[in-house]
Amino acid sequence: MLRNAHTIVDLSVLISADMLIYPGDPNPLIEPLSTIKEGGANTTRIILGAHTGTHVDVPYHLLARGKTVDELPLETFCGSAVTYDLTHKVLGSRVSPDDLKKAIPLKNGEIALFYTGSNVPATSGSTSRPYTSLDITMADWLIEKHAKAVGIDSMSVDLLHSPKNEVHKKLLKNGIVIFENLSDNLRLLTGQRVLFFGAPLRLKRADASPIRAFALI
Amino acid sequence: MLRNAHTIVDLSVLISADMLIYPGDPNPLIEPLSTIKEGGANTTRIILGAHTGTHVDVPYHLLARGKTVDELPLETFCGSAVTYDLTHKVLGSRVSPDDLKKAIPLKNGEIALFYTGSNVPATSGSTSRPYTSLDITMADWLIEKHAKAVGIDSMSVDLLHSPKNEVHKKLLKNGIVIFENLSDNLRLLTGQRVLFFGAPLRLKRADASPIRAFALI
Repeated sequence: MLRNAHTIVDLSVLISADMLIYPGDPNPLIEPLSTIKEGGANTTRIILGAHTGTHVDVPYHLLARGKTVDELPLETFCGSAVTYDLTHKVLGSRVSPDDLKKAIPLKNGEIALFYTGSNVPATSGSTSRPYTSLDITMADWLIEKHAKAVGIDSMSVDLLHSPKNEVHKKLLKNGIVIFENLSDNLRLLTGQRVLFFGAPLRLKRADASPIRAFALI
Repeated sequence: MLRNAHTIVDLSVLISADMLIYPGDPNPLIEPLSTIKEGGANTTRIILGAHTGTHVDVPYHLLARGKTVDELPLETFCGSAVTYDLTHKVLGSRVSPDDLKKAIPLKNGEIALFYTGSNVPATSGSTSRPYTSLDITMADWLIEKHAKAVGIDSMSVDLLHSPKNEVHKKLLKNGIVIFENLSDNLRLLTGQRVLFFGAPLRLKRADASPIRAFALI
């Protein structure tokens, strides 16, 4: 029932106590606060690290004076997006601009989404499977293209436990917010230009937020 | 940078420790998990009741066998919406279909949004200010019109501490999800038909979810 016959593609992973989380992050908890029997209504308490599941990182994550989630307008997190297919890359490798040959060009202010195949449903529950991340030259490319944001279906744009988080840092310093752990549905968007939405909760002073990311195609 | 020259209107209140919450609900907590100085990155833990701030209620909230947040497709929470101006109603009163005279008709499957003026920014921090809710005849009207969802800028579609939550129950029994505590920006949409988005986090077995609600106009 959307106008213009849009279809919604859900790009978010399920948030549950036993989901895959970045090693070291707290386990999410979704627990009853009251029940219909005792209290007349089911209500729920949610305890989450801000980087749980599909989420967005903003500059404050790595920059002491960077903007927090609530300081950025919604336009930062929504807009025209191009999805690049990177499934020819071995899981665990890093993506560089050379890997984007023959792809749709990214326009000024667009969002670049990278589909790597790192988040196939079978990997939930596992914490050991390698994921594809971005090379620092990819951050330079995104800055040069004036990308508004970048998204990936991996746990991180940096290597696991990268001590310097250099890709994050370079992107965030340049105001490029980072969507991570997009669901495997991202495969449905490869080679297309779509309208992407990754709006964070309006959380005061947070460095990141879990999101319900989706695209209109 | 959205296609079709859309403008985004943010319809969400700020989530903070000192925000206005429904009396009896837990206070939200947004706290540092690590800092750049100690740990190399700012990270945040979020503890929220599912009905904190701008949120959506789904059938499981009041129906033991009702659908949970993760069991409903994204289309349930997004679509064409009409906003009704109800600021002629005294705060604390209840809205009935007679109050909608001369308004845009609601089409099959659309979302009805009610702007009551209950959520003007000055009321944050206060827990005592009355809010406008819906009369049970308004629930009947929404069912008759085959509304997909209903939204309001009040704390609840029912009276404060309503023992039976009869408006909630009737709506949820009929599959009509309920957006509550939309921000005062809803005033910008009165008398208009817009594209509304109120996607919940994909939380396993939750009865509700905080949302970043917004509209495209």
